[in-house]
Amino acid sequence: MNKIITIGREFGSGGREIGRLLAEKLNIAYYDNEIITAIAKKTEFAEEYIKQIVEKKPSLFFPVTVGRTLYLGEHEILQQSNEIYIEQSNIILEMANKSDCIIVGRCADFILKELNPYRIFAYADMNSKMKRCKKRGFKNENLTDKQLRKQILKIDKNRASYYRFYTGQKWGDRLNYDLCVNTSKIEIQDIAEAIAKMIK
Amino acid sequence: MNKIITIGREFGSGGREIGRLLAEKLNIAYYDNEIITAIAKKTEFAEEYIKQIVEKKPSLFFPVTVGRTLYLGEHEILQQSNEIYIEQSNIILEMANKSDCIIVGRCADFILKELNPYRIFAYADMNSKMKRCKKRGFKNENLTDKQLRKQILKIDKNRASYYRFYTGQKWGDRLNYDLCVNTSKIEIQDIAEAIAKMIK
Repeated sequence: MNKIITIGREFGSGGREIGRLLAEKLNIAYYDNEIITAIAKKTEFAEEYIKQIVEKKPSLFFPVTVGRTLYLGEHEILQQSNEIYIEQSNIILEMANKSDCIIVGRCADFILKELNPYRIFAYADMNSKMKRCKKRGFKNENLTDKQLRKQILKIDKNRASYYRFYTGQKWGDRLNYDLCVNTSKIEIQDIAEAIAKMIK
Repeated sequence: MNKIITIGREFGSGGREIGRLLAEKLNIAYYDNEIITAIAKKTEFAEEYIKQIVEKKPSLFFPVTVGRTLYLGEHEILQQSNEIYIEQSNIILEMANKSDCIIVGRCADFILKELNPYRIFAYADMNSKMKRCKKRGFKNENLTDKQLRKQILKIDKNRASYYRFYTGQKWGDRLNYDLCVNTSKIEIQDIAEAIAKMIK
């Protein structure tokens, strides 16, 4: 069976960076935005639209005006969201069956559970997440600290709702993961190194 | 400031073993039953009585017949439990102020929060915990699987209640820890090695 690692992560926790570093260290495939591109190819939805869909609970984004349609009713959005989720699940399964790999976000821990993935969840204290967001310049040049904090909470709330909607489980609950790592006190590089050593 | 590591753990998850191995690898002090002995010296409660007290929410053990008294009312038990908790907190603080150390259980993550400890929580799937309990021969030679499972759940329920009672927080909630590690899939030895590397 392939070595599959899934990474759930709070926004600004550096989970994506852990994924990239782990992929380098273990010399295995890393999938993130590639999944969006693959869905776009298979469904004809625009990539931007898919990005908007895949981290929010369906009923939350009404009305929307991006993608191939202009104004959609809630029912249609739910249908499109489900269509994208199913396509995404198929693509993730294909990728995981093809070779060892790391997949970030997208309920991959749940979608791939039959393949016994090593499931990581990265999180951090709010101050640490704000610092990381500022450092990497998350569209936030003009945000006050208060606005940035609100934005981080909102993104994570959407991720939690999306996860709950499609998996029926609580996002970030340790029982759904093999390792939950707080990135506030330790350098991402050291965390990735330790994990690579542990699961190699 | 001293390097302080606290380890919370589900019963049967191997958290204590991680603690011992980490202490060896980092060459620092390890405190577990030493704390009970120290409380016994300072309070004149019997060690067995203290052991019974320190992992249960006070109101749960009524009536009790061990320790220096025979039958106690709920109020007295609560008082004794609080007395022991306060003594325990003082001893844990003393130990942490004395040198680098690892402390297993006993709300140490909460008691030492001002000292910025690295807080680990070890957990595991039920099958893995049952297997570990059987291997180490936890007073369970005559227990059926069903009884053993019930026993594990009961011990953890008591730990959770005790933690909630004295800290006001949820036991095992990742937000109270720096690392939550599921010991079901990886050897304890490899986990300890990775953690030692990460926090050295």
